[in-house]
Amino acid sequence: MAVNLRAPDAAQLYPVAGVELGVAMAGVRKANRKDLLVVRLAPGTSAAGVFTKNRFCAAPVLLARKHLTGPVRALVVNTGNANAGTGADGLRRALTVCEALASVLGCKARQILPFSTGVIMEPLPAERIIAGLPQAVADCRVDNWFSAAEAIMTTDTVPKAASARVRLSSGVATVTGIAKGAGMIRPDMATMLGFVATDAKVARGALQTMTRLAADQSFNAITVDGDTSTNDAFVCLATGKGPVARSRKDLAALGAALTKVAQYLAQAIVRDGEGATKFVTVRVERGRSPAECRKVAYAIAHSPLVKTAFFASDPNLGRILAAIGYAGVAGLKTAKVDLYLDEVLVAKGGSRHAGYREEQGVAAMKKPEFTVRAVLNRGRAAATVWTCDLSFDYVKINAEYRS
Amino acid sequence: MAVNLRAPDAAQLYPVAGVELGVAMAGVRKANRKDLLVVRLAPGTSAAGVFTKNRFCAAPVLLARKHLTGPVRALVVNTGNANAGTGADGLRRALTVCEALASVLGCKARQILPFSTGVIMEPLPAERIIAGLPQAVADCRVDNWFSAAEAIMTTDTVPKAASARVRLSSGVATVTGIAKGAGMIRPDMATMLGFVATDAKVARGALQTMTRLAADQSFNAITVDGDTSTNDAFVCLATGKGPVARSRKDLAALGAALTKVAQYLAQAIVRDGEGATKFVTVRVERGRSPAECRKVAYAIAHSPLVKTAFFASDPNLGRILAAIGYAGVAGLKTAKVDLYLDEVLVAKGGSRHAGYREEQGVAAMKKPEFTVRAVLNRGRAAATVWTCDLSFDYVKINAEYRS
Repeated sequence: MAVNLRAPDAAQLYPVAGVELGVAMAGVRKANRKDLLVVRLAPGTSAAGVFTKNRFCAAPVLLARKHLTGPVRALVVNTGNANAGTGADGLRRALTVCEALASVLGCKARQILPFSTGVIMEPLPAERIIAGLPQAVADCRVDNWFSAAEAIMTTDTVPKAASARVRLSSGVATVTGIAKGAGMIRPDMATMLGFVATDAKVARGALQTMTRLAADQSFNAITVDGDTSTNDAFVCLATGKGPVARSRKDLAALGAALTKVAQYLAQAIVRDGEGATKFVTVRVERGRSPAECRKVAYAIAHSPLVKTAFFASDPNLGRILAAIGYAGVAGLKTAKVDLYLDEVLVAKGGSRHAGYREEQGVAAMKKPEFTVRAVLNRGRAAATVWTCDLSFDYVKINAEYRS
Repeated sequence: MAVNLRAPDAAQLYPVAGVELGVAMAGVRKANRKDLLVVRLAPGTSAAGVFTKNRFCAAPVLLARKHLTGPVRALVVNTGNANAGTGADGLRRALTVCEALASVLGCKARQILPFSTGVIMEPLPAERIIAGLPQAVADCRVDNWFSAAEAIMTTDTVPKAASARVRLSSGVATVTGIAKGAGMIRPDMATMLGFVATDAKVARGALQTMTRLAADQSFNAITVDGDTSTNDAFVCLATGKGPVARSRKDLAALGAALTKVAQYLAQAIVRDGEGATKFVTVRVERGRSPAECRKVAYAIAHSPLVKTAFFASDPNLGRILAAIGYAGVAGLKTAKVDLYLDEVLVAKGGSRHAGYREEQGVAAMKKPEFTVRAVLNRGRAAATVWTCDLSFDYVKINAEYRS
């Protein structure tokens, strides 16, 4: 089902010095599937992260956010259970898992970042996860990124991983990352997770800035169904085993590489969106601020009517104008709005362009990938959001009973 | 498909003195279907309305809003074409229709309120509508409410109309109304329209206040897909042929009757929502303000994940907690939130209630109507929103090609 997305070539996923990954089948929810990942980090690794803004954020998110303030030695990720909506008991269980991994690795529990994805409001089977940890740790090696990408899949149909190399002044740095998520949530399986590591040496503050910027241009610019999970997390790790990034230029180059990898991963999540048959770029230009451009882009990308029209390859463009109209942009002059499907001008000055013919719209929308571009003509800002269509399969996947 | 909704009994739709309704088949988009309604009003009728906040509001909305500032003698409503996204040309065409009806009725064009619903971004076939006007005017009579309700249907499967009688100090007033809308939009057919008339004599200002209050508790408290149409309108008419409503008590009684009729019509729209198989009341209680309660209620009612769970009768309650969490309520303490399905307490203090068993949730959700009740425990305000589920048929209806 995924739109123009294939599994990455494992040989093209460059190891990152200082990062070892190991997986196990812990039977969290189902037997015989990889559902546990341990990422072991060299001492001195910097870590930074952005997390869900959902106030019902999961126990592991609370812990990971707290543990990020100090040095980090490992990540532990389970699928099958989100450990969200589980209160104080959920926190205790997440901490138990950190303690168990810390004792295997010989570090402190507060040096472990835990992540969970899966059913909400059910108790985390911590004992099964803990029982799987030795196997995952024994599996730890630097060339295990592909297997790690598989271990964090839930309703994903394709593992998601990417690598980049970037020249800094003191040498070439590697950036490799993995992600999961196929819709913000499916019946039980929640969440988008993204982990990107580099061997570059970067100060924590600079890494946090890069992480925030990369997230804004990747994971924070995608939507499948508009539902923000309780467990979303994007974490960047810098082991410091490779070249140093300290100059402005080096930091910019490394930041760009991180963003590139994050963007690939984020787009892969949309391409593999639940029931997706189309990958759509929504670009809003010439707004007064990036924020208002994003508002308009999300109004288009979230509208069930627009998304079903994408599915049908039906250039029912009034629906897009309607979404622009209700996006909540104060003082928007609709008589100035132009709308394009790829390069086809469909609406000019707020109404149907005289030269537009429906066949042009159909031709653009029949492609598996296309761009909807709205030009507001009231400023200089722009924003881009990536989304997919709303198909029968989205309803099917999400209406299937959990058992 | 409609959930517990049958066509009204025409005999139970009480005529309103001073209101005559006539319909015609004008062939706006398709031949042989009632697609034109004229509502003729006695001189001295007060009128008030609330309109879409969509900035791409349609030409007829602009005109109706303007014409409402003076005396009103008639409404003209067509289906098949929304006359939205049509710019200055659309305004001219809408005005032409008003002028034509004014010349038939012997009044001024600015005394006519025009309404349109249907395809967006296509030119209004004003000539066909104008050609149909004499037939509609000839059909005008006081006992024609059922036929009027049929004439404004688009993807509606059931005509929507309701009547009430209310005792005022100087006699019994009648309130009768009709509405259309079955999802905010379907492929082409947009819009929710509601028209409610009373024979009571009410000052315009008081009527406007009543209309706003009624809208807030009816049409502004429903959602099918969250898409705000370009053409939404709710108009109240008071002919003054019946008892006078001037005292505070009379105004309150009349307002309550208007609200009751509007609420029935609004709920009928949800029951007949595109693809709807469930009618769900979302009630949020003990918030700090009605606004924050509405925010939470709409977050639940708009979530595609929650709506597909409704469709599946799957008490996947984490999805509801997640929606509450991302509703954007500042400072919300999730550990205080309780959640009920009808009378079943499913989450207590933000996590699964110990006594809750899944069978209870399934039993509640299998019913065609149930209530989701979230108790925030941080204030005294409350709000209610009505919605339906998201089914295969919603996608089918909205993905069907327009031709």
